[in-house]
Amino acid sequence: MLGILGGMGPMATVDFMGKIVRNTPASCDQDHIQMVVCSATDVPDRTAAILGHGADPFPAMLNALRRLELSGATRIAIPCNTAHHWYGALQAETSVPIIHIVDAVTEALAQRRTSPTLGVLATDGTVHAGIYQQRLAERGYACVVPAATAQAEVMRAIRLVKAGLNEEAAGILGREAEALAARGCSHIAMACTEIPLALAALDSDVGAALLDPTDLLAQACVRSFLAAPQEMVREVA
Amino acid sequence: MLGILGGMGPMATVDFMGKIVRNTPASCDQDHIQMVVCSATDVPDRTAAILGHGADPFPAMLNALRRLELSGATRIAIPCNTAHHWYGALQAETSVPIIHIVDAVTEALAQRRTSPTLGVLATDGTVHAGIYQQRLAERGYACVVPAATAQAEVMRAIRLVKAGLNEEAAGILGREAEALAARGCSHIAMACTEIPLALAALDSDVGAALLDPTDLLAQACVRSFLAAPQEMVREVA
Repeated sequence: MLGILGGMGPMATVDFMGKIVRNTPASCDQDHIQMVVCSATDVPDRTAAILGHGADPFPAMLNALRRLELSGATRIAIPCNTAHHWYGALQAETSVPIIHIVDAVTEALAQRRTSPTLGVLATDGTVHAGIYQQRLAERGYACVVPAATAQAEVMRAIRLVKAGLNEEAAGILGREAEALAARGCSHIAMACTEIPLALAALDSDVGAALLDPTDLLAQACVRSFLAAPQEMVREVA
Repeated sequence: MLGILGGMGPMATVDFMGKIVRNTPASCDQDHIQMVVCSATDVPDRTAAILGHGADPFPAMLNALRRLELSGATRIAIPCNTAHHWYGALQAETSVPIIHIVDAVTEALAQRRTSPTLGVLATDGTVHAGIYQQRLAERGYACVVPAATAQAEVMRAIRLVKAGLNEEAAGILGREAEALAARGCSHIAMACTEIPLALAALDSDVGAALLDPTDLLAQACVRSFLAAPQEMVREVA
């Protein structure tokens, strides 16, 4: 059974669950992967905590993790890029494997024939914590993030999406994606759930392939259960 | 915390969670209702069981209910009309209130000034079990279901939606909705999660107001938590 440590934000969790369902080969309800989901909206803001001016989100995330374990989760996914700052601390608390969102991205990169350089569009928290940079480097991939002034524009675009101003956000994100492509990025990770909502509305080619990490995470989860079908089954507590 | 006994089917559960989020007045993640969700795709087919040719879905539903209780749910919702055939048996097993989908519909009907007559478009299982007919009668509302040949057409349309043939399904459902309106229905409940997907594509007026019970259930859940904000908070196990 797949456990989803969600609620960061709640609509991103709903979107992720939809991606799990759509990526599962199924002809009836019973073919689908069982899921238990905590939409833990009590988790404090992750970017604020990373930037040093917010409450520690770890206790609330650990509480949600414990609930997923109790419910019989045999794999766990966290559909929030920034929350992966606490990945190591969470994985240290449980024997249930947590599928890392950046590993789902590197698995997709490994499918490409040429050696890719990944650009990352993300929140200040994700960039500042080095979530993509560190894990990509460990796996031998080059990674580029926007310079400080460009990152401020990306964060402004994310806030515009949260306010429903997707068209204005798409213009900004398109320019910043083009800038990353000009710096040699063959692929760009839209590593904040708001970003695909705006960039999908953009018609023009930014000069690099766009990757959606939450969709890649959903695909990795589905593959993981198809490879170990016995773990799709509910473990009775 | 809202518990969702879901997975019947999995995409209907995703859709219902989206309706909870969209119906919640919120300006940040932390304003949203905490949810714990079991997508219990191991529950056998409900209509088959009601019609006497399938395995009993109750044990798997009860198992999911126990997980929701363990996770601290203070209210439970079931985003599947047909599953409400087991509502009484499930509620008898728990002290956590389960919000009945038909009660969410009657609350919406009570807002109307005139006395409404409700037509019901639903699966054979929901109609055969009398889920809407009995509860509406108990609350003093008149209820009309399609005649046998018309019900067979409704079931055919539901299968067409499951196969992605929404336009053909919309034609059938539009005709059957008009037939219910001609029999005196002022309102029609689209009481199977597939039906709104097709009827929403229909431009023409069917002569009655269309109600979406899962959206009304989401609204009832949100109202319930706004009225008792202390129950939105996670109960630590």
